[in-house]
Amino acid sequence: MEPLLKEGERIDNIGFGNLRLIQKPGDFCYGIDAVLLATFADVSKGGKVIDLGTGTGIIPLILSHRTEETEIIGVEVQKDSYERGLRNVDLNNLSERITMIHVDVNEIAEKKLFGKHSFDVVTTNPPYIKGGSGIKNKEEAKTIARHETTADLSDFIRAASFLLKERGDFYMIHRPSRLVDICFLCRQHKLEPKKLRLVSPNRDSAPNLLLIHCVKYGMPELKFLNPLYVYQENGTYTSEIMSLYEKNK
Amino acid sequence: MEPLLKEGERIDNIGFGNLRLIQKPGDFCYGIDAVLLATFADVSKGGKVIDLGTGTGIIPLILSHRTEETEIIGVEVQKDSYERGLRNVDLNNLSERITMIHVDVNEIAEKKLFGKHSFDVVTTNPPYIKGGSGIKNKEEAKTIARHETTADLSDFIRAASFLLKERGDFYMIHRPSRLVDICFLCRQHKLEPKKLRLVSPNRDSAPNLLLIHCVKYGMPELKFLNPLYVYQENGTYTSEIMSLYEKNK
Repeated sequence: MEPLLKEGERIDNIGFGNLRLIQKPGDFCYGIDAVLLATFADVSKGGKVIDLGTGTGIIPLILSHRTEETEIIGVEVQKDSYERGLRNVDLNNLSERITMIHVDVNEIAEKKLFGKHSFDVVTTNPPYIKGGSGIKNKEEAKTIARHETTADLSDFIRAASFLLKERGDFYMIHRPSRLVDICFLCRQHKLEPKKLRLVSPNRDSAPNLLLIHCVKYGMPELKFLNPLYVYQENGTYTSEIMSLYEKNK
Repeated sequence: MEPLLKEGERIDNIGFGNLRLIQKPGDFCYGIDAVLLATFADVSKGGKVIDLGTGTGIIPLILSHRTEETEIIGVEVQKDSYERGLRNVDLNNLSERITMIHVDVNEIAEKKLFGKHSFDVVTTNPPYIKGGSGIKNKEEAKTIARHETTADLSDFIRAASFLLKERGDFYMIHRPSRLVDICFLCRQHKLEPKKLRLVSPNRDSAPNLLLIHCVKYGMPELKFLNPLYVYQENGTYTSEIMSLYEKNK
């Protein structure tokens, strides 16, 4: 039996196998960012995977489709998103493979929910916008998803470093304007940036997203991957974006 | 009277006005890197400018052509390059505007040659290749120009921070593989990266150079400029590279 939809919710096919997602458009819907990150992360080596700030679980769902591994954990601080995430796991019959946990990334170490240095892969699509100061409605779902209200970039990176094994992989999507913060904080927390991919809306635009792969205790040397363009001139997805879906059908 | 050429040297027109440069091809010749950096640096606000690791003075020469300012200093550790630099200043009748100084960037603070925080602009095209360990002939001009033998990236950045006024501009060209080092060290030394431009040989290649503009005590927020492509498909310079010369004729 499918979980019932609550007011304002809908079910979307997400384009990976038969996976479906309950979303509440009034709160927050996942964007292409989540798809880019979930397909950028290499989970082929298997092991334990955790997604920090998972929202309603889009990244664990796509990852579950890309690996046979059963240990995928999603962590979310917002109660409503977390509960929707639980129903998404049920909806897709993935409760034996994906576990959703309602916790603030800042409390991960302290609450001892997971062993220190126990994960092989950490993914995160954190809030992009710096600082929560000046925002009136800090309770609003959209605000928490987009602004650093409950946790900031350094909190996500610190949690990732706490969770990852030596040589473990950290994958993040963020804004290019935060690249210096990312490089500085990742190195500070022993997550050495190894690969960077810039994402631009099209060939004539500056990048508006970046994908970064860090390795815990990795040697310093950054490789720039070819840039990724999202749209063609006619406004449709480029073949590379289409192939992210097709490769993972 | 022109300074005499020494054995193995030649005089090249560098493509900016009538500027000419004595080089010794057996030692080291300047590359497009120097031209990219000297045209990326904004010297229109005037003030005191210093180029660290100036070689035979290519960057001060181009900068002298782009500004009316008279205080341009070039610093070089290699005796031969420094002496060639002195003759280049004479050759172009620029001795009233450009001063060449023979010193190691690591000795700038200690030797009190310049006042602390006294420069408006610092430029540098430092050695790109990490570490000097394992290199047999550390005295060789090409080795010192390309490898971090006498000074490494952190030494250049520390010297730049020592020399620059508050809100002063730091311009550097380097390899993309060193971007994390650059971001980390610049922020550590209060030179906040504000603009980044990636340089690729052509549209289908990953970047092999980067131009970075940092501001002393600047606010954290990095802007990605449009990428710069050096060659067209037919192997000739792109119009943008040609325009660097034409704008500065």
